[in-house]
Amino acid sequence: MNQRTHQLQIPTRGKGLYDFTVEIEKWLAGIPAETGLLTVFCRHSSASLVIQENADPDVRRDLADFFERLAPADPKLYRHTAEGPDDMTSHIRSALTHTSLSIPLHQARLALGTWQGVYLFEHRSAPHRRNVVLHLIYE
Amino acid sequence: MNQRTHQLQIPTRGKGLYDFTVEIEKWLAGIPAETGLLTVFCRHSSASLVIQENADPDVRRDLADFFERLAPADPKLYRHTAEGPDDMTSHIRSALTHTSLSIPLHQARLALGTWQGVYLFEHRSAPHRRNVVLHLIYE
Amino acid sequence: MNQRTHQLQIPTRGKGLYDFTVEIEKWLAGIPAETGLLTVFCRHSSASLVIQENADPDVRRDLADFFERLAPADPKLYRHTAEGPDDMTSHIRSALTHTSLSIPLHQARLALGTWQGVYLFEHRSAPHRRNVVLHLIYE
Repeated sequence: MNQRTHQLQIPTRGKGLYDFTVEIEKWLAGIPAETGLLTVFCRHSSASLVIQENADPDVRRDLADFFERLAPADPKLYRHTAEGPDDMTSHIRSALTHTSLSIPLHQARLALGTWQGVYLFEHRSAPHRRNVVLHLIYE
Repeated sequence: MNQRTHQLQIPTRGKGLYDFTVEIEKWLAGIPAETGLLTVFCRHSSASLVIQENADPDVRRDLADFFERLAPADPKLYRHTAEGPDDMTSHIRSALTHTSLSIPLHQARLALGTWQGVYLFEHRSAPHRRNVVLHLIYE
Repeated sequence: MNQRTHQLQIPTRGKGLYDFTVEIEKWLAGIPAETGLLTVFCRHSSASLVIQENADPDVRRDLADFFERLAPADPKLYRHTAEGPDDMTSHIRSALTHTSLSIPLHQARLALGTWQGVYLFEHRSAPHRRNVVLHLIYE
């Protein structure tokens, strides 16, 4: 059994879902792993992770809209507004989605279903560079 | 340290929560594992995983009702309606619950609390067969 | 590769978010781990886990308020009210946040971002003692 860690930097152009499955697979391609466990960890509390449908881009738009309705950027609702109206909503949306994901590796491939992609969910309006740690246990 | 992977197929009769803790324990029973880490991974974005109370079935009904209110199957709310009014709501409910779960194994038993069961949460109205990957690292 | 498990007991004073990052780090300090994977598992379905901002306490208050609005303690909404109006809302809030978290360990430190803390999210009004299992794979 071996371990590897790696940090990805994912540039965002503001709010939305960014597919980085290919970046993960590129890193895995350099590791002779047959069976293992991949952990994906987001080092922020105003961006998060989600595994979602990767076919129709409307899914990402509808998902983003849903979170706008669920946690609206209405300053009257929040105390914590130091960084603007999208500050507290980002923390809420992050808590409701995921900071870590675990994906088994089987026969040298991630166990993702046919229609599943791994997304960074940016909750802030401004562009950011987001740090995501990858950790693999394998043999 | 060793690894094992396995794929379960969980038949659903449409929307609702399906306890499959016993199927997991049945698989674990054939592995001489004392300490370890179990990962449960759902290979779909219109069904998900959740650990919930396994005593009163009303908890599952109330939970299902809550998600009906939270993400109603109202076609006016969504662009992505190709597979019907329960299509986009399934992706939303999946993002709000879990695609992967990690459960430690201690003294040859899952660390689940007394009242915790592992559920597949089916979000589509029609019956499906859902693929769930189990991965165990152990010794 | 080695494994260790440990159970923390986290006392709560009722609803709210309780930072226990220090308790985790205290346990890790006694283990000669350079690289690894930490799993945090909550053995309850009426309390949960969340990684959140650890700077401004208003974030925790706003987050708690958000969940009060999202799943209000209105007995008319739920069948499962055996343990009072905060019973079913606890299960809902637990399903929407996390029962397990996975955090990589790199260069003998958790991969947490600068502003990230690990919280127990107590959903019941009464004080409780909550059991959280820690599992570490490392070398």
